[in-house]
Amino acid sequence: MTKHGALGVAVIGTGRMGADHVRRIDAVTSGARVAAVVDIDAERVKAVAEGIDGCTPYTDPAAAMAAPDVDAVLIASPGPAHEAALLEAFRHDLPVLCEKPLTPDAASALRVLEAEQRLGHRRVQVGFMRRYDPEFVRLKALLAGGELGRPLMLHCRHRNASVPSFFTEPMLINDSVVHEMDQSRWLLEQEITAVTVLRPRPTAHAPEGIGDPQLVLFETDGGALVDVEIFATCGFGYQVQAEAVCERGTARVGDAHGMLVNRAGTWGGEIAQDFVARFEEAYDRQVQAWVDATRRGTVEGPSAWDGYAAAAVCEAGVRAQATGERVAVELIDRPALYR
Amino acid sequence: MTKHGALGVAVIGTGRMGADHVRRIDAVTSGARVAAVVDIDAERVKAVAEGIDGCTPYTDPAAAMAAPDVDAVLIASPGPAHEAALLEAFRHDLPVLCEKPLTPDAASALRVLEAEQRLGHRRVQVGFMRRYDPEFVRLKALLAGGELGRPLMLHCRHRNASVPSFFTEPMLINDSVVHEMDQSRWLLEQEITAVTVLRPRPTAHAPEGIGDPQLVLFETDGGALVDVEIFATCGFGYQVQAEAVCERGTARVGDAHGMLVNRAGTWGGEIAQDFVARFEEAYDRQVQAWVDATRRGTVEGPSAWDGYAAAAVCEAGVRAQATGERVAVELIDRPALYR
Amino acid sequence: MTKHGALGVAVIGTGRMGADHVRRIDAVTSGARVAAVVDIDAERVKAVAEGIDGCTPYTDPAAAMAAPDVDAVLIASPGPAHEAALLEAFRHDLPVLCEKPLTPDAASALRVLEAEQRLGHRRVQVGFMRRYDPEFVRLKALLAGGELGRPLMLHCRHRNASVPSFFTEPMLINDSVVHEMDQSRWLLEQEITAVTVLRPRPTAHAPEGIGDPQLVLFETDGGALVDVEIFATCGFGYQVQAEAVCERGTARVGDAHGMLVNRAGTWGGEIAQDFVARFEEAYDRQVQAWVDATRRGTVEGPSAWDGYAAAAVCEAGVRAQATGERVAVELIDRPALYR
Amino acid sequence: MTKHGALGVAVIGTGRMGADHVRRIDAVTSGARVAAVVDIDAERVKAVAEGIDGCTPYTDPAAAMAAPDVDAVLIASPGPAHEAALLEAFRHDLPVLCEKPLTPDAASALRVLEAEQRLGHRRVQVGFMRRYDPEFVRLKALLAGGELGRPLMLHCRHRNASVPSFFTEPMLINDSVVHEMDQSRWLLEQEITAVTVLRPRPTAHAPEGIGDPQLVLFETDGGALVDVEIFATCGFGYQVQAEAVCERGTARVGDAHGMLVNRAGTWGGEIAQDFVARFEEAYDRQVQAWVDATRRGTVEGPSAWDGYAAAAVCEAGVRAQATGERVAVELIDRPALYR
Repeated sequence: MTKHGALGVAVIGTGRMGADHVRRIDAVTSGARVAAVVDIDAERVKAVAEGIDGCTPYTDPAAAMAAPDVDAVLIASPGPAHEAALLEAFRHDLPVLCEKPLTPDAASALRVLEAEQRLGHRRVQVGFMRRYDPEFVRLKALLAGGELGRPLMLHCRHRNASVPSFFTEPMLINDSVVHEMDQSRWLLEQEITAVTVLRPRPTAHAPEGIGDPQLVLFETDGGALVDVEIFATCGFGYQVQAEAVCERGTARVGDAHGMLVNRAGTWGGEIAQDFVARFEEAYDRQVQAWVDATRRGTVEGPSAWDGYAAAAVCEAGVRAQATGERVAVELIDRPALYR
Repeated sequence: MTKHGALGVAVIGTGRMGADHVRRIDAVTSGARVAAVVDIDAERVKAVAEGIDGCTPYTDPAAAMAAPDVDAVLIASPGPAHEAALLEAFRHDLPVLCEKPLTPDAASALRVLEAEQRLGHRRVQVGFMRRYDPEFVRLKALLAGGELGRPLMLHCRHRNASVPSFFTEPMLINDSVVHEMDQSRWLLEQEITAVTVLRPRPTAHAPEGIGDPQLVLFETDGGALVDVEIFATCGFGYQVQAEAVCERGTARVGDAHGMLVNRAGTWGGEIAQDFVARFEEAYDRQVQAWVDATRRGTVEGPSAWDGYAAAAVCEAGVRAQATGERVAVELIDRPALYR
Repeated sequence: MTKHGALGVAVIGTGRMGADHVRRIDAVTSGARVAAVVDIDAERVKAVAEGIDGCTPYTDPAAAMAAPDVDAVLIASPGPAHEAALLEAFRHDLPVLCEKPLTPDAASALRVLEAEQRLGHRRVQVGFMRRYDPEFVRLKALLAGGELGRPLMLHCRHRNASVPSFFTEPMLINDSVVHEMDQSRWLLEQEITAVTVLRPRPTAHAPEGIGDPQLVLFETDGGALVDVEIFATCGFGYQVQAEAVCERGTARVGDAHGMLVNRAGTWGGEIAQDFVARFEEAYDRQVQAWVDATRRGTVEGPSAWDGYAAAAVCEAGVRAQATGERVAVELIDRPALYR
Repeated sequence: MTKHGALGVAVIGTGRMGADHVRRIDAVTSGARVAAVVDIDAERVKAVAEGIDGCTPYTDPAAAMAAPDVDAVLIASPGPAHEAALLEAFRHDLPVLCEKPLTPDAASALRVLEAEQRLGHRRVQVGFMRRYDPEFVRLKALLAGGELGRPLMLHCRHRNASVPSFFTEPMLINDSVVHEMDQSRWLLEQEITAVTVLRPRPTAHAPEGIGDPQLVLFETDGGALVDVEIFATCGFGYQVQAEAVCERGTARVGDAHGMLVNRAGTWGGEIAQDFVARFEEAYDRQVQAWVDATRRGTVEGPSAWDGYAAAAVCEAGVRAQATGERVAVELIDRPALYR
């Protein structure tokens, strides 16, 4: 990569998220291009590459990362494949934007953390895209400004219209609430120390074997309390809300807004139907910020430490979900690289 | 009436508004009772009176007003009958709450004004109930407080779901926009000096011969400009909104609010379906305020002068509507009694 | 009381709530009058009675209840005095509106319950006025209508600007959260079976010895889960909100609304500063409903059973607050009189 | 330009808007690069070019357009310089994004229209960026979908916190209300046939000689009525709102939204302070859409006809402003190229 040339990105994985990132880097992001796409499905990856000028298809991530026109890696493959891809990227000292989760469990996340420390500098940004949502950015700035005093509680809502057929109960934690875990750590600048999961009698619309909705509680090392309603089959749309309760006021994001319509006895607006519609701008800003930082030679955004912490809290959360008990979160001491 | 006894009210007219006032005074208002009801329909008035303890039915307003247990009069008969009822009430020196309009035209309103002046003291309150709506009261207080500076413009919306079969185009002015006339005069504390009526091509839902909606413009002697959307067949509900644009800010009332529901892809709330639902509290407060003032021996609220001014502005408005021209409002000098 | 005469009410207690009820019955409520006021402070009660026509002051509740012009009793004395007053009212078979709490603890509430059962008919309405707030009434109707399906969770917020100097930590439960206890039981039509109290690190504005805010969790016998943020020193105003999460949608009440102002870089509205401003209409409607039912010879609204259940849940709540444990609620079987 | 290479854009003018577009194309827009910048101020343009890789500074627009690496032109110079720059771009058959106004008057706009017709194909997109604002896009889609029926009225608000010292009264029309002119034509798909300007007594904060605020009325050839409040010194922020009143409902955009804060007795949010903050996303989307269309070899968005029509309506508007009369808009027949 020349200093001002477009960043050549290899996108690993061409499923729903991967294909969306390919489109984004090709058509939305400034200063980057899709140099390579990787998928074990050779036909699919070839079809994806054909639509993009100068893009080479690969079935092996290592081969793509070795290509001379690849400057950076975006990992959007399934979680279990992340660790190997991350370690390979470290071998080539390539900057990585890794879709969440960093890895599926704390032990593997720890190995990534150690590998990055051996590298001696940060290379990984984890895809917690809410940190780039304009409303959450404003909430973060308000809290950081201190005007409202110390945050005491965080009330969170995370609602999906429905879930795919392969959905399992632990995915409520690992795929959905993981966002509130990162969001809480980021907004509060505190680590989560314990998780409790409470359950009402499930909705009639919950799939067999899934206790939906649930109320997930986090305690933090700064003494804050977080409650998260996760409701994966709410039926009416995709809705993410958060209210920070502080010493001198509260602030809320995620209320629906935009165009207001009067019609047939009601006033109101539309609710987004999925996370792509709700967080499209956050995804765009996240990738642009990563490209911009990478071209400047820096690494910013959520780190591998954030990915590891989320994995550790998720493990506690799944245990809390299964046992009905309060489960303490075990974290290693924060390494110097991530302070 | 003894000082602390319940005020004996004669309600003239037992149509929709009259019947509602009978119910209100009987069951909602403190310190008053329905002593008499009057209607030319002898059967109907007898039926109404039967449900209320100590209430006598009459077919002649004069007879009701002469009854010893009648302390005050509420006129809810059709507009053309108001003048005679008001003059009869003056004859007995009885306090009157007169539903709007005071009378159907400026000439007859002027006769009422003159009769009240001959009486030497105010006896009439006109039923412009928006002055008792909690939101409008707050808007009035904000403007009066001066915090936002001088009001420059007033944007008003007045929407009805539909109109009854006997509705005529001048009723858009005389029955609907008359409220914005009084509201503007009250909020701005200025007289209306000219009216212009503009018309878009009518809605397909407008009855034959009615150009609905219209945009009615008022100029005031204080230099303010008021625009009123009147839309009598909007279909979706009853909605009254006003925004005052001032030198240092704006204030808006009448947005829907209350319970918010998420449901089937939309968020929002309900719109009231008629003026009774929207202004029920204003009606309750208006009658209570009138009863309270009357028992204290005072007369407050919109005066006969306000009724006369509304009639004069209505006449200009109907002419403006018919001609498409800007029509100046002619008012007599404000008599001393109403300053 | 003659059938159509005004209901003669004895108001017991002339402190803040009592004095407000005296004013309400005298000036707002239809069909009732203050026949007697009772306070141990003879001078105060005499001063109160003097302002009202036909009102006799007493220092002894029993004497007031024995007076021939007293048809009903409103108890607004301190909680510890309620039991004796209620039993005295039963002795005269007088209908009672008893400010919450019914009594300060479950044991005394049970004695009241038993006395009312011996009477053989309901006489008591407990002053849980939220049941008369227009927004809560709409929420109740929506839930009861079944359109949104079964309620699964209830998220509640209860915020006070500040607390008086005599406030204690158990009062967070007994004086504040008691409203959410009744509200949850009423909205869900379920009994509360367990209470847990969680605490973040307190706000710097909390008085010495009061862990404010707290998150109070209720479980119900229908499998619903309720979380209540109680924040008694939030500083910015008085705010009560509730969101019911149902199988097919959610509904929220208590968002601020009304007049919207644009001013100096911000848009928004005012927050009520105390419960009187926020629930004034609910208080008015509650007393009117009680008077209307009493004059019809019926007893409606929250019963002594509701008062007893609230007392039992409060006891569990205070224990949960003190221990940090989940505390089960013990209720007797619901007597036939209250089914 | 190779098919997939970055579009080389020459930006004419490096004032506030031009500099912002340079930044945008350099750092935000995908698939484009700033190949040339032009300004009569040689030092300024050199400084701007230095920050961007492969960007050449020019003081002569013609020279920049002749450069082989210039594929397209973005005109952001002052309005009077637009005509010459557009004609020069036509000489090189280059696609142009021309900041509004197309030209400062209808006669010159007509010359541009004729020149583009001689070229035989569309080359110009005019910078009416509201057409790319997400809320306005949604409103347009709702109206186009026909669900609410035919639009009858459009209520518009356009408020600026303050104006620069060189502001003049005609600029209320030419610089501010010109947006509502285009917005109305676009939303309604109708031409404006007459303009009237009404004035309240001006705010005390209006600069000498400027009658601020004003109410501007448009009539359209489809029978719709548009009212626009232009208030250039409102003091509290930048606010653009529009409500379409249709046969079966209304739809409103531009209400403040986003993060809600409870604080010190009020709830609400922030108002943007200038058009850059309010319409940043619209500008980004506009330029991206222009780059994307240009790379596909097409021309989309507001055309030179839209620029001409706006100029003609502005002329009528300024005359209406000066005379207080209703002024008819004169338009030539729409040429085939723009149908």
